[in-house]
Amino acid sequence: MPFDPTTLRYNDAGLIPAIAQDAATRDVLMMAWMNAQAVAQTLKTGRVTYWSRSRQEFWIKGETSGNTQELVDFRVDCDRDCLLVMVNQVGPACHTGRRTCFYTEVQDGEEIEIATPMAGG
Amino acid sequence: MPFDPTTLRYNDAGLIPAIAQDAATRDVLMMAWMNAQAVAQTLKTGRVTYWSRSRQEFWIKGETSGNTQELVDFRVDCDRDCLLVMVNQVGPACHTGRRTCFYTEVQDGEEIEIATPMAGG
Repeated sequence: MPFDPTTLRYNDAGLIPAIAQDAATRDVLMMAWMNAQAVAQTLKTGRVTYWSRSRQEFWIKGETSGNTQELVDFRVDCDRDCLLVMVNQVGPACHTGRRTCFYTEVQDGEEIEIATPMAGG
Repeated sequence: MPFDPTTLRYNDAGLIPAIAQDAATRDVLMMAWMNAQAVAQTLKTGRVTYWSRSRQEFWIKGETSGNTQELVDFRVDCDRDCLLVMVNQVGPACHTGRRTCFYTEVQDGEEIEIATPMAGG
């Protein structure tokens, strides 16, 4: 069946969550949002493109930082309301310089940092 | 720092997205939503508990199906507006009987099913 980005289920703001997973390490790197046009752009260009809710503009991941996400696989969930993009991540995915945004773990009721910023990240 | 579920950033409906990843295979299994009480319950019981938006009730994963998610690790992202739960998944995570909800892949503009329902799932 041909894929049509408009057939996904977007929220009231026209957005769908997209989970980025490192295709090599399989670490979950981040979650951000796409609109239908960002979905289409991601598939067309092979460069993962989100919609920035804070800046209200397209966000081609790594365009300014160089920490790009090259699309490897693009997956849709059963309800068509969440996306999983498998990526080749250059450098850190997180704006804090860490490889992944999920660097805080709750252990025995305490928050523990389990990753540090990458060198030169 | 002690973890307090009320310090997470919830959306206008009081919910935060939670990504479930298989702790063994590292497959991303599903994405669902939690409220502050579901977060607290998940950590307290070790059984991953979501908030069902369709039924407007707590959803202890697997309570009726037996396809439970035992919590292995609980992580918070940099913006504190997304969760990652690493789980021991019993049986399929998806209501279609597939191990993961992300069984549809877009390849060359076509939707391809890359997983089938589990036996007895």
